Amino acid sequence: MAERDEDKLGGEVARALHAAEGTAKAWGLFFEGAGEGWARCSMIVRDDMLNGHGAAHGGMIFSLADTAFAWACNSRNVKTVAQHAAITFLSPVMSGEKLTAEAREDAAAGRSGVYSVRVSGEDGRAVAIFQGVSRSVGGAVIE
Amino acid sequence: MAERDEDKLGGEVARALHAAEGTAKAWGLFFEGAGEGWARCSMIVRDDMLNGHGAAHGGMIFSLADTAFAWACNSRNVKTVAQHAAITFLSPVMSGEKLTAEAREDAAAGRSGVYSVRVSGEDGRAVAIFQGVSRSVGGAVIE
Amino acid sequence: MAERDEDKLGGEVARALHAAEGTAKAWGLFFEGAGEGWARCSMIVRDDMLNGHGAAHGGMIFSLADTAFAWACNSRNVKTVAQHAAITFLSPVMSGEKLTAEAREDAAAGRSGVYSVRVSGEDGRAVAIFQGVSRSVGGAVIE
Amino acid sequence: MAERDEDKLGGEVARALHAAEGTAKAWGLFFEGAGEGWARCSMIVRDDMLNGHGAAHGGMIFSLADTAFAWACNSRNVKTVAQHAAITFLSPVMSGEKLTAEAREDAAAGRSGVYSVRVSGEDGRAVAIFQGVSRSVGGAVIE
Repeated sequence: MAERDEDKLGGEVARALHAAEGTAKAWGLFFEGAGEGWARCSMIVRDDMLNGHGAAHGGMIFSLADTAFAWACNSRNVKTVAQHAAITFLSPVMSGEKLTAEAREDAAAGRSGVYSVRVSGEDGRAVAIFQGVSRSVGGAVIE
Repeated sequence: MAERDEDKLGGEVARALHAAEGTAKAWGLFFEGAGEGWARCSMIVRDDMLNGHGAAHGGMIFSLADTAFAWACNSRNVKTVAQHAAITFLSPVMSGEKLTAEAREDAAAGRSGVYSVRVSGEDGRAVAIFQGVSRSVGGAVIE
Repeated sequence: MAERDEDKLGGEVARALHAAEGTAKAWGLFFEGAGEGWARCSMIVRDDMLNGHGAAHGGMIFSLADTAFAWACNSRNVKTVAQHAAITFLSPVMSGEKLTAEAREDAAAGRSGVYSVRVSGEDGRAVAIFQGVSRSVGGAVIE
Repeated sequence: MAERDEDKLGGEVARALHAAEGTAKAWGLFFEGAGEGWARCSMIVRDDMLNGHGAAHGGMIFSLADTAFAWACNSRNVKTVAQHAAITFLSPVMSGEKLTAEAREDAAAGRSGVYSVRVSGEDGRAVAIFQGVSRSVGGAVIE
């Protein structure tokens, strides 16, 4: 099946953001796919991502979800930033587990957008559910 | 003025969590102070903490706030985890700026607690406001 | 197509809750449908639901969404309460417009569940996106 | 002690909003006080505010908090709307109890503001903690 132009653009924007992120290298972040209004990335939890109780730090789980959100809300090549985000933690994660975050657009109105992100463990269980509210600031992400 | 025993315990728990966190070293996190129901930590934003637009990644700002929240909600030496957290981003942050997060308890009821965290820039401006909901799972954090 | 037993039970629980709610009569709330993990209700915005700027009060939009969430999270006939909820307002609503809220389950783990609710206007536009976190407290809703 | 002009204006705006709200009469809402960046209102929970489990509907608790938030974020007489709000429910409420909501400003930056609202029961316990994000849309609330 031929890829839609909108999805091709979304994928290109996500790849450009991924390449420009200082955090992508720091976290060992994988690009898993992206299109118009959606994106998917993954990360393997390491010992330097653990909290004081020995489980994955909530900040790292949020960071993975926030990255998928950023790719999805910039996917139409209009520079867009996060204004608000919320996360519910459902299951602890240990070192060595691969986590995958998938963002999809719930609604868009004017310059605002609302996105849901599901962070899943290797066994498919829901690790966290994230909701992000974006605001377009204008200008293109890529030429 | 003599320190209250409850604040002394809160400080000890926070220092123990800080020492045990894999993320504390990874992020260059500073312990700034802690007591019963409150905690303060700081971090200097580095290039490997930037997003694809060249500003501090929202995930790192959240991570700093989430750490202050974790120290504050564990401060009575009862093991406590984050269940939900939300963040509103108010001002962009560039590489090199020192950010400080201060958590305080808004309310506690049964095993649940609600905490607010203000993340401030070097000039004192509000960079983000975070709200965390915690749940005590029982057991001591330190002996 | 034959209705699944789980959906039949969800519908019965929602109807029982609707009948027992003091608010259902006060708000003129309509039962639109319900099944396992989902529910739909609607309401016509009245003058006594307007805020000081003359538009639908955010509290009433939240209340509609929260009702769909309550029906959905109780749909397995285990008494369940809201622990946390968040809402993003996307479009103003005037007096006389019919709003519809549709809740669906995003994830469930142990006694916790996460639900999304979309509140739509008559023209189908997204008026608000709501996210609710539930906690089962045990006991049956209906005999 | 002489009242500050900013607080006098905040009080006048809140009183004007209260008088214009269709919901104020419907809910029996009391004006308790308001000034620059803060506001307080109260309400007695009635049978027509109960949910299907026989306790105060979360939507009504939210609505009370949202009203205090609206008064506080409009207190500088610049028309301001709610963009996002979150609430954590901490304690159930029965019919007949008087609830008080107090909003205060946590931070403001540009056209955005973040407010916390504590909803308390008659005995002073925390019933809910609310956080609201506002956006100024311009124009005056009162002449």
